[in-house]
Amino acid sequence: MELTEATPDPGTARPGGRTARVRAAVLDATAEVLAEQGFAHLDLTDIARRAEVGKTTVYRRWGTVTGLVADLLLEMAQQSVPRTETGSLLGDLTANARLVQRTLADPRQGALFRAVIAAAGSDPKAAQALYGFYSARVEEWAPCVEQAAARGEVPDGTDAQEVIRATSAPLYYRLLTTALPLDTADADRAASAAAAAARAGAYVREP
Amino acid sequence: MELTEATPDPGTARPGGRTARVRAAVLDATAEVLAEQGFAHLDLTDIARRAEVGKTTVYRRWGTVTGLVADLLLEMAQQSVPRTETGSLLGDLTANARLVQRTLADPRQGALFRAVIAAAGSDPKAAQALYGFYSARVEEWAPCVEQAAARGEVPDGTDAQEVIRATSAPLYYRLLTTALPLDTADADRAASAAAAAARAGAYVREP
Repeated sequence: MELTEATPDPGTARPGGRTARVRAAVLDATAEVLAEQGFAHLDLTDIARRAEVGKTTVYRRWGTVTGLVADLLLEMAQQSVPRTETGSLLGDLTANARLVQRTLADPRQGALFRAVIAAAGSDPKAAQALYGFYSARVEEWAPCVEQAAARGEVPDGTDAQEVIRATSAPLYYRLLTTALPLDTADADRAASAAAAAARAGAYVREP
Repeated sequence: MELTEATPDPGTARPGGRTARVRAAVLDATAEVLAEQGFAHLDLTDIARRAEVGKTTVYRRWGTVTGLVADLLLEMAQQSVPRTETGSLLGDLTANARLVQRTLADPRQGALFRAVIAAAGSDPKAAQALYGFYSARVEEWAPCVEQAAARGEVPDGTDAQEVIRATSAPLYYRLLTTALPLDTADADRAASAAAAAARAGAYVREP
């Protein structure tokens, strides 16, 4: 699709005018190349061609491939699903774990996350953007642990962010270090393990 | 150091004769490039030069950069430390977690693990080798959970491999997705969380 100022197709356009549409096209192309070929194959001229956007625009607005990855991660953090409130710690952590599992088990999203994690290993600016993405996700979900502490489900002084990270960790570890499938049962096990450990006081901060 | 058939310096030589010394030099150079520059910069001719080994030898024995990574992971699995037996599940998992933490917190080893995980994301043969490495490590440590089940510390039917993976997972997740330090307290928390969840039955296999 050529990006124009013409009235957009309501089924495909994103709000925000031409600037937002250019950004959406460029970030879609970036995600596509990352998922299909990896960070090493990102190239600004190629992205401009795929997005059907002028090369000058891409160089001026994003500057480097790291700039593209950083902006993509910012967009992913802003677009990501708000947390669910179920009324129990196990319910909330299960909702969180299933969201992570669905994302990682999706071939395209899973490949994208692998690619940005790989990029972070070799590029400090991509790493900062990746840490920002995960920090935003952890902050979004941490209140479910604080609410569980207020309800008396977990001990006072429980590190809420650590419980959220513990819920995601086994799913990422399974994706990155094994050929095992990643299904709903894995999500549910990750959530119950984190909830059980939290109830047992494993995440209480050291005094 | 030039590799020769001459009597080796006992302080630096590895056992096994010239073939083993060539392999050691090539794998050392491979680990060095991976840790310093990443998978995308591996090159057989460069490895031959760094290892002071004939280019033909490297091409004939390893064939591709993926072949180098696969052999390095095989060597890492064979050289890795055998498990500790402390007599309690928490003690054994703590020993395991501290070993993982020390490895990942070491700048060189941490960079090497990041690089091989990144390589696995873009290269199916490197992925197979990586899965083999982690599978060997998990199998090495799984008996500590089976012994805990025999002692009645965890319920019958506990998935031993899943408990071992759960012990490592938060340490890898912290390394890959945050800028937070990775210290002994993180290892101890990962071990107590996995032990508490295992005692609570979170890793019992579905019937």
